[in-house]
Amino acid sequence: MYNFDFSNRTRVIFGKGEQKRVGELLKPLAKKVLFHYGGSSIKKSGLYDEVITSLKENGVDFVELAGAQPNPRVPLVRSGIELIKKENVDFILAVGGGSTIDSAKAMSMGIYYEGDVWEIYEKSIMVTKTMPVATILTIPAAGSETSNSSVISNEENGMKRGCNNNLTRPVFSIINPEFFFTLPKNQIANGVADMMSHIFERYFTDTPDTDLIDGMCESVLRTIMKNAVKVYDNPQDYDAWCQVGFGGTVAHNDLLGVGRGQEWACHGMEHELSAKNDVAHGAGLAVLTPAWMKYVYKDNLNMFVQFAKNVMGVEGGLRDPEAFVLDAITKLSDFYKRIGLAQTLTDIGIYEKDFEEMAKRATRAFYGNESPLGGVKKLKWQDVVEIFKIAK
Amino acid sequence: MYNFDFSNRTRVIFGKGEQKRVGELLKPLAKKVLFHYGGSSIKKSGLYDEVITSLKENGVDFVELAGAQPNPRVPLVRSGIELIKKENVDFILAVGGGSTIDSAKAMSMGIYYEGDVWEIYEKSIMVTKTMPVATILTIPAAGSETSNSSVISNEENGMKRGCNNNLTRPVFSIINPEFFFTLPKNQIANGVADMMSHIFERYFTDTPDTDLIDGMCESVLRTIMKNAVKVYDNPQDYDAWCQVGFGGTVAHNDLLGVGRGQEWACHGMEHELSAKNDVAHGAGLAVLTPAWMKYVYKDNLNMFVQFAKNVMGVEGGLRDPEAFVLDAITKLSDFYKRIGLAQTLTDIGIYEKDFEEMAKRATRAFYGNESPLGGVKKLKWQDVVEIFKIAK
Repeated sequence: MYNFDFSNRTRVIFGKGEQKRVGELLKPLAKKVLFHYGGSSIKKSGLYDEVITSLKENGVDFVELAGAQPNPRVPLVRSGIELIKKENVDFILAVGGGSTIDSAKAMSMGIYYEGDVWEIYEKSIMVTKTMPVATILTIPAAGSETSNSSVISNEENGMKRGCNNNLTRPVFSIINPEFFFTLPKNQIANGVADMMSHIFERYFTDTPDTDLIDGMCESVLRTIMKNAVKVYDNPQDYDAWCQVGFGGTVAHNDLLGVGRGQEWACHGMEHELSAKNDVAHGAGLAVLTPAWMKYVYKDNLNMFVQFAKNVMGVEGGLRDPEAFVLDAITKLSDFYKRIGLAQTLTDIGIYEKDFEEMAKRATRAFYGNESPLGGVKKLKWQDVVEIFKIAK
Repeated sequence: MYNFDFSNRTRVIFGKGEQKRVGELLKPLAKKVLFHYGGSSIKKSGLYDEVITSLKENGVDFVELAGAQPNPRVPLVRSGIELIKKENVDFILAVGGGSTIDSAKAMSMGIYYEGDVWEIYEKSIMVTKTMPVATILTIPAAGSETSNSSVISNEENGMKRGCNNNLTRPVFSIINPEFFFTLPKNQIANGVADMMSHIFERYFTDTPDTDLIDGMCESVLRTIMKNAVKVYDNPQDYDAWCQVGFGGTVAHNDLLGVGRGQEWACHGMEHELSAKNDVAHGAGLAVLTPAWMKYVYKDNLNMFVQFAKNVMGVEGGLRDPEAFVLDAITKLSDFYKRIGLAQTLTDIGIYEKDFEEMAKRATRAFYGNESPLGGVKKLKWQDVVEIFKIAK
């Protein structure tokens, strides 16, 4: 196990009715709040009215900014920053899914940065001052409600880039699984694939002696899969949503990544799918993950045998460990299929003619400074093309 | 699953050599530090010199207070508070095990409290201002390095009382498992029993729908047991210590207790053993836990079957679930025995003549306001006597 430095300050307030406390919680923290959200869904669910009521009851001044959308865009972030300056906002409340939260985090970093906010993502600039953010989560998936990550898309150049900065961890996040009851089935499935990938990206490692975190990763993955099927079949299942919802938070709060090398090849590849065809992040991950596994497992056979046994529950003898692992990869694909996720790149509108360019973008070879993806096997652009071919 | 409100601000800095950073970490946080520790062990290990060097190199002013001891005592806390006032200290650094850290936490709460510090523990007073504490951990056991708990003993009245206050969570804790290499075997074993109990006290619950946290508890317990045997047999096994050491932190940082009713009967009973005969906390827990299980399992059979299967790895059929559970309890006792822990109250100098008084103290019946212990089965003083008899 490697040395590590871990902290996660985010206060998680979880369960039925907790959204009503948002004004009370913000009152001591904020003079004027930017209330940032997506569009009509929080109005339909009544959450919008509850937030407004709670802010007003607690005398918390606010200004609204709607319009956050999947794969959040730079122009909205720029207008948010302008609005924050114009209105003397000192706190950002993001109400929505990962995209709304990431959009808020980008504003939080951009507001005190002298250049354009996109530079922070493009050049991985570690800003040292941010505006505090809090969230009410309506889609469990990205884990952004306690993570230090945000991801922004730039339509001008077809790029999607992430940035990790501990200062962007929300001060608090309210998670009431009742707000997940009305999610469309495809969004449920995409979210599940995303949170599982957040664990896979940490779980697959060549760092030795990582029993403790391995076991926690395995257990959280099993619980998410078990309960994902329940909420997919019955989106009103509050108790199953509790497991999936908080599972998604734990998946990405960094505890499950301490002391170990991490992977992140699938995320790196998937960002190019989203940038190319506005593919939902989770849908892209569900297609790429089994293909990535097939491409890399032979070089990391013991790790994948452990995955097969402890995560996917493959049973039986190990005289043929490769068959054991392939059985697990099939089981994972079957799970994704069970919750309605696409199985191939073709299914999500990504075609072979674009493989080389996407692979070169993902590995930065396109920009002349190739930086191989991944951890357990370093992937150059040619490797990424091979994985795309397995997934096509 | 219940609603919950969870946050843990403590920054954990983990691994070889990290103790050298203490001065650099304290520099921006403190003007003058109280350097609190036990006795000779940190001088023997060289840690004392490393701390002094790091503080001096970073220009951090400090004053020393030695003398923290197992089951930390009120008089030392009182002298610490006087010293803090006299020396204008604004930050407490605890270097040691749980007792040293708890002693520091008591000072941290007592310093701004107008009455005597013991009142905070006796009357469960929730102070609202504390002095920040940081730690360098030398004994993995109590979990106090990230917990909100501290426990203090009062020899004047034979009482041992705990207090939970989120403000006492350390700002940072440095954990370098190399400092565990020189622990005596009995201290290793006591620590392991203590951290396992911190999980048991959260794991055993009658709250329904707790899959996610159940699975994490089970996995951390299995990892601790597996690696405890390794460090017991070879206290120089750094990699195994990493699992046990961080396992002890995770065991008590409250993540494993969110959204569920908790137990805490064994801790409540054990405090009376420590108060009566200065029994090491972990040693007392290892004696009481199997006895408690035997007394309560019939009323919570499904939960205990889950424990037997998922924690203790009992295999085979379930046509006789009681035998299945008893098998697991025997396995747990065997595990404690394997790492040299006592099996009976007699072994640790606690005799039947004191059972009734200890049971009445543990349940507060002695003080005229009985408050039954535990969660899955409420224990009156008569129940506690029965458990002591099973353990005798």
